[in-house]
This record gives sequence, C-alpha cells and structure tokens, in this order.
Amino acid sequence: MDDDALRRGKPASHVKFDEATAILAGDALQAAAFEALARTPDRSLVAPMILSLAKGAGAQGMVGGQQIDLAPAGDVHEIHRMKTAALFEASTRLGALAAGSPRVEALGRYGLRLGLAFQAVDDILDASERGRRNFAAMHGVERAKGRAAREGAAAKAAIRFLGPRGERLRGIVDFILSRKH
Amino acid sequence: MDDDALRRGKPASHVKFDEATAILAGDALQAAAFEALARTPDRSLVAPMILSLAKGAGAQGMVGGQQIDLAPAGDVHEIHRMKTAALFEASTRLGALAAGSPRVEALGRYGLRLGLAFQAVDDILDASERGRRNFAAMHGVERAKGRAAREGAAAKAAIRFLGPRGERLRGIVDFILSRKH
Repeated sequence: MDDDALRRGKPASHVKFDEATAILAGDALQAAAFEALARTPDRSLVAPMILSLAKGAGAQGMVGGQQIDLAPAGDVHEIHRMKTAALFEASTRLGALAAGSPRVEALGRYGLRLGLAFQAVDDILDASERGRRNFAAMHGVERAKGRAAREGAAAKAAIRFLGPRGERLRGIVDFILSRKH
Repeated sequence: MDDDALRRGKPASHVKFDEATAILAGDALQAAAFEALARTPDRSLVAPMILSLAKGAGAQGMVGGQQIDLAPAGDVHEIHRMKTAALFEASTRLGALAAGSPRVEALGRYGLRLGLAFQAVDDILDASERGRRNFAAMHGVERAKGRAAREGAAAKAAIRFLGPRGERLRGIVDFILSRKH
C-alpha cells in the first residue's frame, strides 16, 4: 500500500508478480496462519491462540492500524500500537500459550513494548525519508531515542519475573535498540 | 479483481471507498471469521471448524481458485470447484459441525455439489457477458443446464439420509436451479 518497489532490498510481491497475486498471497497466508494454529496438538490451546492472532492481525490490530495510517488525521501513537506492536504482542502471547506459561499477559506486554521500541527505532532510521507518520521526523531524533529506550525498558520490566531465564528475551530488546538499518 | 464497478447492483467497495480500504476490509473480515469460530462455546469444535474454513477460503479453496482464474490456461472445472464450491462446502460443513451432526462429510458433499450447481446456473445467466471462464459460453447453454441439473441431483443425493428432515436443504437446491437473475 505504500507502493514501495522494494521490501528489505528485494522486489515487492506486487512488482515481482502483480497486484492481484500479491493480494491473494496475503489472503492465502492469513488462512494458512490460522490453519497452523488449529493444528496445535493441545486442542485446548486452539481457541485462545486464534483469538490472540485475530486481535493482533485484524481490525483491532495490524489491519486497523493500516487503515488509520491511510487517513489524513491518523494518530501516530495509535498507528504504531495497532499496525506494528499488536502483532509483536500476538507473537509473544502465542509463544507463551504454546509453552504453557502461566504468564501469558506479561509476555504479551513484553511483545507490545518491544514492538513500540522497534517502531521508534524504525522511525529514527527512516527519519530523513518519511514525514507525517514518523515520530522522529515530527518530534526530533532525540525524543524518539528517549521513547525507544523507555519502551525497551518497559519490555524488560514486563519479563522481570523470568529472572536469569529472560536473558534471550532481554537480548532481543537490546538488538532492536541497537540496530543501524 | 474483475474490476466491476457494481456488485449485486450496489457500488463495489473499491469504487465506493478506495482499493486500499477494500483490501483491508477483506483482510479484517477474514480475521473476524476465524475469531467468530474460535468463540464457539464447545471448544472441541474449534479446531475442526477452523480447518474447514481455512481449506475452503485459502490456497486450496477460494483464494487458490481466484489465482488459477487469473492464469490464461486456468481450467474452468477446477476454478468452479475451488473458487466457488469450496466455500459452499465449508459453509455446510460448519453447519454440520455446529449442529453436532455425525454426517459432516455428507453435508460437506451437499455444499460442494450445491456450489457447482450455483456456478453452472451463474454461467448460464451470464453467458452473453463473459467468455473464456464461462462453461455455458464455452459449451453451450444446453450442456450447462444439464450440468446444473446433475450437480443439483448429486447435492440432493448426498443428503438422502436426512429423509423428510432434508426438505429445506432440497429446497435450496431447487431455488438455485430455478433462479433467473
């Protein structure tokens, strides 16, 4: 929808194939994602997993955020939360559910804050290119850096209960905060 | 994707709103459909329901059929089965599952055949307008009528086990075979 010809340095689907194929691939992959969750061996997990993914992907999450992003008056915080962070949140909730963790909400919060940190850094890296929707372009790189650091700290705080077992999840926060491209 | 400005006499979404909004509405509604199934009170039904819908809607069903329809050499029978009838089949499977029927496969076959009858009739009604993908335009209205009747009879045969309780489902077959627009 941003009509970029490249995605992570490779030709975007709608350029390499065509628009119809790109749309259909998205539709097919969405159905395949729900299908994969429905094949979870522990059947009691299927409904909560589907609900987590539907919330992160649908009108309350990524799709809703993209729609708000198309509107002239879309709020940058709401866009970041829905379009980016809701799917991070769903991802970590799904991992927590699959692992049988009793702390699904806390691990979901970790994902949400990680997603907000990711988007803040993304805006800093893209500050020169984009406009209206870019927090760093709107409020300056220094404020965006402060924001990224706060979200990263909140992500780590959400998984404090893991103690030493949270090392890898904290490492992901540091990786996201320090990425340069 | 056919770029028609009207859908059942009303402006199509991509015309009334815009293309991005139409695509996002489809994405959001797909997630909402899976979410609705995940809220089925009997949790043991959730996985089989999700699998039925994913098969009818995704790469093996509607989306796959639409993709084949975009290809120059797409087979008309395969397109009808995947693009139209697979979702009819999923619909009747879901009804059977929700009702706790022990005859899910038979009711699915009823839906599949009903969908093929529907598409055969659709081709007859559209025979003057369309070309390559239209069975009636390719093989003549008489052959298409025979095809519709055979599929309708097969739909009714699949639910013979229902006896008098199958009256409404047989009525749907007759309705589809006799529609004029």
